[in-house]
Amino acid sequence: MKQYTKASVPNQARIELHDILNLTGAEISVNQLAAGQEIPFVHAHKENEEIYAVLSGSGAVVIDDEKIALKAGDWIRIAPQAKRQFSAAADEGISYICIQVKENSLGNYTAEDAVIG
Amino acid sequence: MKQYTKASVPNQARIELHDILNLTGAEISVNQLAAGQEIPFVHAHKENEEIYAVLSGSGAVVIDDEKIALKAGDWIRIAPQAKRQFSAAADEGISYICIQVKENSLGNYTAEDAVIG
Repeated sequence: MKQYTKASVPNQARIELHDILNLTGAEISVNQLAAGQEIPFVHAHKENEEIYAVLSGSGAVVIDDEKIALKAGDWIRIAPQAKRQFSAAADEGISYICIQVKENSLGNYTAEDAVIG
Repeated sequence: MKQYTKASVPNQARIELHDILNLTGAEISVNQLAAGQEIPFVHAHKENEEIYAVLSGSGAVVIDDEKIALKAGDWIRIAPQAKRQFSAAADEGISYICIQVKENSLGNYTAEDAVIG
């Protein structure tokens, strides 16, 4: 069985990678919002933490009524139960990835999980 | 308790986000290799799948003796036991993220895990 799956992700509003890459430990989406656009609903999660990374542009996320400015290079971890809503800046779009993983699912990692050579 | 953790990731050779962002379901690193540079060892994993995304530049990864070219926008999922080694192109550096998650750890996700409103 092949030990890897590769995909080239095009520029589009949203692409979900779980099924494309045969992921088993995460769902990952790559997202773009145009200037002035916002996700049209607030959401939280039952079991999953989400990790967002801003690839380019700027915008904001409202988390439990606190508005947090976002720019390229920013990373943010959001607990499952927190209510969140992302938006682009009024005058600039935003591109970001969202990594969804089960909270507390990671065991050992990096040196402890690695086999060298 | 605060429901989120945010960090601005600077340009540097490597930064690991697990402890910075208080991650519980993933370890994530942001990496840069200069033109001609390669990771100086081959590695595999015991339990974790890795998902790599190329942010900019170009390079390659050797997986179990197969060399796969990489460019910005490429994503690749690598099974734990596969042997891997990343490198930048001879004439161009590469910037990439590595997401480490426990294989088969994800339960429900997106719509099934979401709470709207």
